[in-house]
Amino acid sequence: MFRTLLAVTIAGALAVTSTASYAESVATERHQVEITSLTNSLANPWGMAFLPSGDLLVTEKGGQLRRVSLDGAVSQPLAGVPEVVARSQGGLLDVAIDPNFSSNNWVYLSYSEADPDGGEGNSTAVARGKLGNNGLTQVEVIFRGAPKYKSGAHFGSRLVFAPDGHLFITLGDRYSAMADAQTLDNHHGKVVRIKPDGSVPSDNPFVDQANALPEIWSYGHRNVQGAAFHPETGELWTAEHGPKGGDEINIPQPGKNYGWPEATYGVDYDGSIISDKTHVAGTEQPHYYWVPSIAVSNMIFYTGDQFPAWKNDLLVAALKGSQVARLDLHGNRVMHEETLFEDAIEQRIRDIEQGPDGYIYLLTDDRNGQLIQIKPAK
Amino acid sequence: MFRTLLAVTIAGALAVTSTASYAESVATERHQVEITSLTNSLANPWGMAFLPSGDLLVTEKGGQLRRVSLDGAVSQPLAGVPEVVARSQGGLLDVAIDPNFSSNNWVYLSYSEADPDGGEGNSTAVARGKLGNNGLTQVEVIFRGAPKYKSGAHFGSRLVFAPDGHLFITLGDRYSAMADAQTLDNHHGKVVRIKPDGSVPSDNPFVDQANALPEIWSYGHRNVQGAAFHPETGELWTAEHGPKGGDEINIPQPGKNYGWPEATYGVDYDGSIISDKTHVAGTEQPHYYWVPSIAVSNMIFYTGDQFPAWKNDLLVAALKGSQVARLDLHGNRVMHEETLFEDAIEQRIRDIEQGPDGYIYLLTDDRNGQLIQIKPAK
Repeated sequence: MFRTLLAVTIAGALAVTSTASYAESVATERHQVEITSLTNSLANPWGMAFLPSGDLLVTEKGGQLRRVSLDGAVSQPLAGVPEVVARSQGGLLDVAIDPNFSSNNWVYLSYSEADPDGGEGNSTAVARGKLGNNGLTQVEVIFRGAPKYKSGAHFGSRLVFAPDGHLFITLGDRYSAMADAQTLDNHHGKVVRIKPDGSVPSDNPFVDQANALPEIWSYGHRNVQGAAFHPETGELWTAEHGPKGGDEINIPQPGKNYGWPEATYGVDYDGSIISDKTHVAGTEQPHYYWVPSIAVSNMIFYTGDQFPAWKNDLLVAALKGSQVARLDLHGNRVMHEETLFEDAIEQRIRDIEQGPDGYIYLLTDDRNGQLIQIKPAK
Repeated sequence: MFRTLLAVTIAGALAVTSTASYAESVATERHQVEITSLTNSLANPWGMAFLPSGDLLVTEKGGQLRRVSLDGAVSQPLAGVPEVVARSQGGLLDVAIDPNFSSNNWVYLSYSEADPDGGEGNSTAVARGKLGNNGLTQVEVIFRGAPKYKSGAHFGSRLVFAPDGHLFITLGDRYSAMADAQTLDNHHGKVVRIKPDGSVPSDNPFVDQANALPEIWSYGHRNVQGAAFHPETGELWTAEHGPKGGDEINIPQPGKNYGWPEATYGVDYDGSIISDKTHVAGTEQPHYYWVPSIAVSNMIFYTGDQFPAWKNDLLVAALKGSQVARLDLHGNRVMHEETLFEDAIEQRIRDIEQGPDGYIYLLTDDRNGQLIQIKPAK
């Protein structure tokens, strides 16, 4: 149990580095795995991305971007990060690197941004900057969610690049603005598709529709915080927080409506009915859903060689139960769900990535947040 | 809990009738249901079928066929039932009525049949007879599994009529003969398709293949005890017992190989490896599978109006955990699995049927086996 580890964190370690490391061997249905905590010195980490060097960029919700190496070393905060509204669910959120990073050094950040006109609202924004030795330079905002809205909840916001180079941004409904997810004049509860420079692709589904924001790819979402591209079909898959019940996996198609809040398999947190309907004409059924909710965060399709029985499976990290749900896929078909790691990890899992080494990496959302490595047991 | 009921069974009740009745209201995700035990006077019941009158025919594994009414009355054994080998998993197994029963009165029974030549082996057979007031007459054997084999295990054997009138018989691998499931010169581990009179349809997949038994529809199965036709596609779906892990739902296509024992998601009961492969070229993946096993018995597609949120869902009864797994389907796609009734029923569930009233009926496999009715709570 990592609880033990936390209790014995080496006294006197620098705040920004940690040599804490603890490994545990855990059985799963198809693989015996070794779970190693590489560091527990991250303050509420939210997103991570591997650099070509093998190091990671890691965001902390409070507003820090750090470089983390697999020996557990954590850098000082990098410069150039935009100012964020670090309150409730907001802050510095996801990080992604450009598909052509090796030649252009672009790094993308999603975050909650205050109203630049001084209003009380905020919204999810995406900025990019060129990564150098000391941090980001040439920083520019490429996406600004509209409208600015006073809420501390449901910002989305996962960043993923499609195989064809478009950038997808997953967004949230801001909770109290949930009805906005059904209208196209705002970004609440939408999945958005832009070019890396922020311009709008001419083949987006609503570019020619009056009163519709042209960045919108799909709508009727609640709070989408997981996104990945299927390795065989190239299609976008997303993971969406339901309320109490009704977490969803969707395969968002351009222009389609995924139903929230008109149709849902969940109820509100206090048990009250948001909609008594699970099926509404003109809206899509989820590809897969959970009742009760597991609080889905990010997800990956596992494409490495370290865990052959998990090849092309969907691994969905979750906050509740500190688990990763493995959906054993045959093409798009979910044949089976296995719950991984739930007895081995005792913090909420906020992000999951596959390393260039084929291992699986997890971030846990805690004041002593961990970077965890999953590899085959020797 | 029905345990309470069992403890207070009315003293002095006739062995063949029971007025025992106990109702319990149980919450599920979408419906509040009332679970009523209509009788607990059935000795290891295995299969049931509704008659046009609204009564049920129920088999008891020991060899009795009884008529049961929904007021809980259980008849004396009906005459005309073939002699069965009632040992271990063998005995009188499933019962089905002809799609044209109202005009022809044919009733079909599956059972374990001794070697008529006096050998020590046995196999699954299917007989039919005309139902009259006292039982079956004009009884004839329409199918005899080959070869006769000395084993007390894995007989299959669910009987279902396709929408086009063909009779499907699901079979088992007889456990110690599991390798036979991969060869076509025997009925072990096969799904079989015949006409109601036992003759072979000319469009069966192996009718023109040398050394293949012409009744075979699909092969590579382990022990198939659940079968139903999808209400929208008309395709056969089956539920198959895995070993330790690897219970499967399949959609058997003509001539296809479902992999057992070359490919499986389970291991043998003692934990030893039967095959370390889950994917083998030339064999089909399951549509859905369970690890650990829930011990799938029969299943239905729910098509009634009493439980609107379950419409067209697959309800899979199981021996372990006394549960019914509800697979929420969208077309063929499993979107979600819900475990129903597990805390309310404390006996193994051997059969599930939908009544003409749209309620759901369960048989439990016990010396005091129950007929249980599931209806919406008032």
